Amino acid sequence: MRVAILNEISAASKNKHILTALEGRGFDVFNLGNTSGEDPNPLLYIHTGLMSAVLIHAGLADFVVGGCGTGQGYLNAVMQFPGMFCGHLLTPLDAFLFARINAGNCVSLALNQGYGWAGEVNLRMLFDELFTPETGSGYPAHRSEPQTQGRQLLADVSSAAHPSMADVLDSLPEDIVKTAFSFPAFRSFLAESSVEIEPINSVITKILNTSGI
Amino acid sequence: MRVAILNEISAASKNKHILTALEGRGFDVFNLGNTSGEDPNPLLYIHTGLMSAVLIHAGLADFVVGGCGTGQGYLNAVMQFPGMFCGHLLTPLDAFLFARINAGNCVSLALNQGYGWAGEVNLRMLFDELFTPETGSGYPAHRSEPQTQGRQLLADVSSAAHPSMADVLDSLPEDIVKTAFSFPAFRSFLAESSVEIEPINSVITKILNTSGI
Amino acid sequence: MRVAILNEISAASKNKHILTALEGRGFDVFNLGNTSGEDPNPLLYIHTGLMSAVLIHAGLADFVVGGCGTGQGYLNAVMQFPGMFCGHLLTPLDAFLFARINAGNCVSLALNQGYGWAGEVNLRMLFDELFTPETGSGYPAHRSEPQTQGRQLLADVSSAAHPSMADVLDSLPEDIVKTAFSFPAFRSFLAESSVEIEPINSVITKILNTSGI
Amino acid sequence: MRVAILNEISAASKNKHILTALEGRGFDVFNLGNTSGEDPNPLLYIHTGLMSAVLIHAGLADFVVGGCGTGQGYLNAVMQFPGMFCGHLLTPLDAFLFARINAGNCVSLALNQGYGWAGEVNLRMLFDELFTPETGSGYPAHRSEPQTQGRQLLADVSSAAHPSMADVLDSLPEDIVKTAFSFPAFRSFLAESSVEIEPINSVITKILNTSGI
Repeated sequence: MRVAILNEISAASKNKHILTALEGRGFDVFNLGNTSGEDPNPLLYIHTGLMSAVLIHAGLADFVVGGCGTGQGYLNAVMQFPGMFCGHLLTPLDAFLFARINAGNCVSLALNQGYGWAGEVNLRMLFDELFTPETGSGYPAHRSEPQTQGRQLLADVSSAAHPSMADVLDSLPEDIVKTAFSFPAFRSFLAESSVEIEPINSVITKILNTSGI
Repeated sequence: MRVAILNEISAASKNKHILTALEGRGFDVFNLGNTSGEDPNPLLYIHTGLMSAVLIHAGLADFVVGGCGTGQGYLNAVMQFPGMFCGHLLTPLDAFLFARINAGNCVSLALNQGYGWAGEVNLRMLFDELFTPETGSGYPAHRSEPQTQGRQLLADVSSAAHPSMADVLDSLPEDIVKTAFSFPAFRSFLAESSVEIEPINSVITKILNTSGI
Repeated sequence: MRVAILNEISAASKNKHILTALEGRGFDVFNLGNTSGEDPNPLLYIHTGLMSAVLIHAGLADFVVGGCGTGQGYLNAVMQFPGMFCGHLLTPLDAFLFARINAGNCVSLALNQGYGWAGEVNLRMLFDELFTPETGSGYPAHRSEPQTQGRQLLADVSSAAHPSMADVLDSLPEDIVKTAFSFPAFRSFLAESSVEIEPINSVITKILNTSGI
Repeated sequence: MRVAILNEISAASKNKHILTALEGRGFDVFNLGNTSGEDPNPLLYIHTGLMSAVLIHAGLADFVVGGCGTGQGYLNAVMQFPGMFCGHLLTPLDAFLFARINAGNCVSLALNQGYGWAGEVNLRMLFDELFTPETGSGYPAHRSEPQTQGRQLLADVSSAAHPSMADVLDSLPEDIVKTAFSFPAFRSFLAESSVEIEPINSVITKILNTSGI
């Protein structure tokens, strides 16, 4: 499992908690957003949402852990893109149900609101339930089939309601794309990765070659 | 303020709680989804998500109250569509912050998970905070400007990442459109309303005239 | 580990969830309160609180799982008695911290408010964290010593602020004692158990021999 | 309404939030515990629990707002004393129900765990529901009578299960009494107040005259 972490600036101080809570699972973890509140390149949820979708569509990550102060901003940002299915998860129970019923590829965490002492313990428990072999198995078990159909319908609607990710990248406001792709950790990760999916590979390559990125 | 309620079948037994919790606010409330768990025309979140977006784009509602068992399904469904900005709101504090910071046009409620005794009291408190003249005023107040910019960027991304709602309606799987538009309360509401926005008016009219709807 | 379950009537429909959530842990589980909302002998939290303290002081249980609609009533009832240390636990994180820091002998669950669909899954996760070998180990670990001292001080205060449980039993309103001790499952359990602690054994024996109990 | 605030050291940084959230209600607010994490006289929940009970029994406060990191420690401490009825309240709904059903004289707040950004907004909402003319009115309304009886039974049990507060004060470990009563704000408040209730007045006067307090 390849898991990308994408923190925006407002909750970057919690980035280390996410890293710790993901440890010991045998995952490849890519920490590609803000890692400190003093990062000189502050990202907003609009950027981390875009970066998340790029990683999924380029086949470079299987799951993205994002979030913001309340979780609502990143959630709304990442859900603008095709093929992104994101849970707003606060508790282990949320994660247990989301994994079984929705089986999405993204989570938006509330990292300031309601995030207090021992928040990192809650994150670990939440990830324990989120990353389970039971993903997509349904809950309760006898509802597995209609829930699987629900996910398929959702994927169909997502396709019908969006252009391809490559086309979206071409259409986005330049400033947003520039801020996202020039973020050092993200830029390096893309430059060093081998994206084999077209046409997104060509679009990413073109962006990385843009002046100023 | 015109508020539409769109319940799917799984949490339709809570529909009456939503209605009650919206009372006394001077709103025009349109109850257009399942209102009972025994409704012979069961809707899934995929349908209520679509219906929500149609109402907003047709200019027939200002805000949509939706949800499902956990809130995650409807959230993911309604967020597939252009111009939909949805909060996953569980507490009055969630609503207070979402109204000020995100100022979206939709809420997804968790109506089975964590919804127990006195849940209707929580709904009333939640709506008290959600429907406030402070919508979009920012929180904390001095963050008003960047939060307003964040909402504008999100709207720009939504436009870039989606075709028009009229085009989405044309592209969606027929079965989904049919189930949604033939739902009696929704069908009647559309048929009796005067949609003056084009091209969505033409598309809706075409769908309503389709055999079997 | 001997765990007693004591449900009052208002949330007795959740009794089976507690039983299931306690399974597979190798515990001796004693189900001694209401087990159904239709139980002809309805118990109030005032009774289940008393019964809990009797079991602990008679050395017949190591831990008591109680609760009520919101959890606040049973909490306040059981905390009237000497030597009872009760957590009001809603989430796995609550249980994780209570076990390490407070290491009490009792939990009060909210079994109606906020208890919705999949509530039994949350109970299982909560018990997973509550019944841990880490009980009393402190959190964070380096705070173990002052937290241990805090528990000792609390026990000292409890002793200073209460008569013995035997004396409390002698002083309680007769009706309350009668309702509690004549409850069939509780009465049988006491009658069949061998209490070897004095003077509580004598007091319990006297009560069980009282006319009408 | 006279409301005392009693923070222990671990969550003293939230004391100002409590003060702000209590403003504008026309209450007499007495801030008698730690007000800063750097206070040179650190109080533990064992002390703030004792101080809370003294204020209630001396007739100097009508309600006490306490708490600790998780809320469980202060809750267990204050509940050791006669006549103390404490809610562990996290949300406005908790407060709404506690006010109507339990109508206690004390609240234990979780001031570190789950207390994040905008926590002070939640406190304000919580107090809005807690301090209501509906106190003791029951919820739902038709359950008013048995709930009133439940509170009376609880008060009866509390009396039967405790000596008088004056006797408790005499029996407590000296160190605990000394730390509590020598805390400057608390000591001054007691010294300047006129306690007219006996025998607690005599016991307090004796303690205040003890060497080192």
